[in-house]
Amino acid sequence: MSAPGHPARPHIVVLGAGFGGLTFAKKFPSGLARLTVIDRQNHHLFQPLLYQVAAAGLAAPDIAQPIRSILRDQPDVTVLMTEARAVDLATRTVTLDHGALTYDYLIFAPGGLTSYFGHPEWERHAPGLKTIDDALRIRRQVLLAFERAETETDAARREQLMTIVIVGGGPTGVELAGTFAELARVVLRRDFEHIDPARARVILVEGGPRVLPAFPETLSASARRQLTQLGVGVRTGTLVKAIREGEVELAAETIRTANIIWAAGVAASPLTRSLGVETDRAGRLKVAPDLSLPGHPEVFALGDSVNLVDRNGVAVPGIAPAAMQMGAHAAKLVASAIRNDSRNAPRAAFVYWDKGTMATIGRSAAVAQIGRLRFSGWPAWAAWLGVHLIFLIGFRNRLSVFLQWVYSYWTYRRGARLITGLEERR
Amino acid sequence: MSAPGHPARPHIVVLGAGFGGLTFAKKFPSGLARLTVIDRQNHHLFQPLLYQVAAAGLAAPDIAQPIRSILRDQPDVTVLMTEARAVDLATRTVTLDHGALTYDYLIFAPGGLTSYFGHPEWERHAPGLKTIDDALRIRRQVLLAFERAETETDAARREQLMTIVIVGGGPTGVELAGTFAELARVVLRRDFEHIDPARARVILVEGGPRVLPAFPETLSASARRQLTQLGVGVRTGTLVKAIREGEVELAAETIRTANIIWAAGVAASPLTRSLGVETDRAGRLKVAPDLSLPGHPEVFALGDSVNLVDRNGVAVPGIAPAAMQMGAHAAKLVASAIRNDSRNAPRAAFVYWDKGTMATIGRSAAVAQIGRLRFSGWPAWAAWLGVHLIFLIGFRNRLSVFLQWVYSYWTYRRGARLITGLEERR
Repeated sequence: MSAPGHPARPHIVVLGAGFGGLTFAKKFPSGLARLTVIDRQNHHLFQPLLYQVAAAGLAAPDIAQPIRSILRDQPDVTVLMTEARAVDLATRTVTLDHGALTYDYLIFAPGGLTSYFGHPEWERHAPGLKTIDDALRIRRQVLLAFERAETETDAARREQLMTIVIVGGGPTGVELAGTFAELARVVLRRDFEHIDPARARVILVEGGPRVLPAFPETLSASARRQLTQLGVGVRTGTLVKAIREGEVELAAETIRTANIIWAAGVAASPLTRSLGVETDRAGRLKVAPDLSLPGHPEVFALGDSVNLVDRNGVAVPGIAPAAMQMGAHAAKLVASAIRNDSRNAPRAAFVYWDKGTMATIGRSAAVAQIGRLRFSGWPAWAAWLGVHLIFLIGFRNRLSVFLQWVYSYWTYRRGARLITGLEERR
Repeated sequence: MSAPGHPARPHIVVLGAGFGGLTFAKKFPSGLARLTVIDRQNHHLFQPLLYQVAAAGLAAPDIAQPIRSILRDQPDVTVLMTEARAVDLATRTVTLDHGALTYDYLIFAPGGLTSYFGHPEWERHAPGLKTIDDALRIRRQVLLAFERAETETDAARREQLMTIVIVGGGPTGVELAGTFAELARVVLRRDFEHIDPARARVILVEGGPRVLPAFPETLSASARRQLTQLGVGVRTGTLVKAIREGEVELAAETIRTANIIWAAGVAASPLTRSLGVETDRAGRLKVAPDLSLPGHPEVFALGDSVNLVDRNGVAVPGIAPAAMQMGAHAAKLVASAIRNDSRNAPRAAFVYWDKGTMATIGRSAAVAQIGRLRFSGWPAWAAWLGVHLIFLIGFRNRLSVFLQWVYSYWTYRRGARLITGLEERR
């Protein structure tokens, strides 16, 4: 399968339409090259809000948009929904599910996946949160557990159904813990007759000494306080020894729970290993300062598949703004290489611009760091809301999400408390 | 398992939380009885808009609301998410997935399911449209077919992927045909490079002589014209002889298609047969004029499970307003029976109040009949929009759905073009 268009122009394959790949495709100047964007999904996902879909606050289409729609006004771009199986750097070929593509430039941005630290058998009992289907699976599982608790007569089994354990104290784990605590204690409180959802236990387990390890210590402490106020049991310095059907084994105790969510590890896509170049333990690529693969100036790697300390000595974090900046950087370099045909001239190094980081915990509860400023509580929550609304791609989503937030802020209701996919499970 | 509360009060089991069962539970006066509402889903579905979820116009949570939320302010009501397996009229017992419930009154409203007229093997190839999961399955299938057509090199296979056949010319079939024609010809038109979605074929097959057989003939003719204008191929008087993988066999031709949707038959829930009383060929119950089962004044049947010609000689149609009116009627009769303890006094017969019927075909395309008034085109579409917004249960849904309609009316975009559930399929 070869790409269409003008054969004289170079062909750029963009592997992955996450924040990095999509930013590349949007920023790349028109008329210079043919672009083929490939992704295994038909939609771009606004991953920072995926936990809201899991916790029944948002509908899946609120945070996802068809890649074709986003790129429809770019005549140089072809979108293919397919899976990349391997990359051969020597022949400049990407092997697809059906067929293959050759490239002049490759933008390698396949994203990450959930890592179970050598325990793939835990996945069955502790789903991760990477895709819409992951989020719908978690939503279904937790809502069903409360439904089952309502008809359960055995007290111990009822408690097990009403216990939620979240493994991993990074932003995703903190956000999941806070929002599930609110779901149980506030949203569902009046909905059941036989059980009291406010007595549900939500436990956040973190191996390191504090939650949000990438944040300053004062904000970690604040996040912990805010979580505790919501009723979340926070266990730091606690490693998971084993996960089995219905229970999590920690060093000091075994927690019986029907709801385990894994937010602990991200590894690079297995595709990175197919490149045959140096990776770190998580499978992330060691790239040159300009984001290209060493020895392969025609290949740029972006986002979660990259392990990079930038020129200023900052380890670039695996978050959406970093991936977007990488995409913009690569677009500039590839465009100038094509324009000047000077592929071997010295290229600008990538410098990460830290616009701040934030994590939300619940209604009016969050932590944020912007430059030297540190917020927590209500101001951090307002900042979080504003930033996420501005960056949500697509007007329809933005307005719809905003209205749902306003509505659920005032009413404490959640509009997406829908159990779907039961038929598939049978 | 026995219901909680005051043992002195009679126990009413409401089997099914569709329009009929839910209206009963909402209208039934408080303080008179204990109610237990059971449904196999956790949500009430606004079925008249389900086709919009299938055609990627709305998100699933837009047309569904948790039953617990809807009934949360009714202290007499307990909601159980479980499946009813059988009803024993003699012992007044409903057997559930786990356990059983005894009742003093039974409101039997399990709804209908898709019927393949004795060909259950067609279901694999031609999904029906009854649940959220059905709608998401159809959405996934059609959107995936276009994605596959984009990479397909064989012209015949490409045409097969871009052909959608809808079996059944009632309101659901007409609405699906119109909205899929718009999806292909307008919404997706600019999104692909290799295929032209505007060349997709949408074919509506109806066994009877005209589409919308329950409407006046002039409106059927108008609907057919409006469908043809949207590019739908309408085949009336055409029976389906067989459905196989990738093709539909009609009397005069065989259509090769990767997308077959079944909108032809509704049958009553198999539970109706477990009652052991008289049913029609579709399994619907023949009830007394007051909606009770003959010989069982403590059992009322509502909605799609009922075959009734009312006192005025009108065959009550299987639509939401009829089911709601039945629910209100039964609530009044049961309340007065409990108040007076006069179960054997003569009861009022149910009279269907026809508020009008309507079907939408596309943007500004619809047909409507309200009393003696008949509309088509833009005025019918506006009426349809207004009525559906008013009757959508729940503020959040109404506002969100309305904004999405305004948005997609002006932009011809569809916000919910999301392919999910791929993992489950593997």
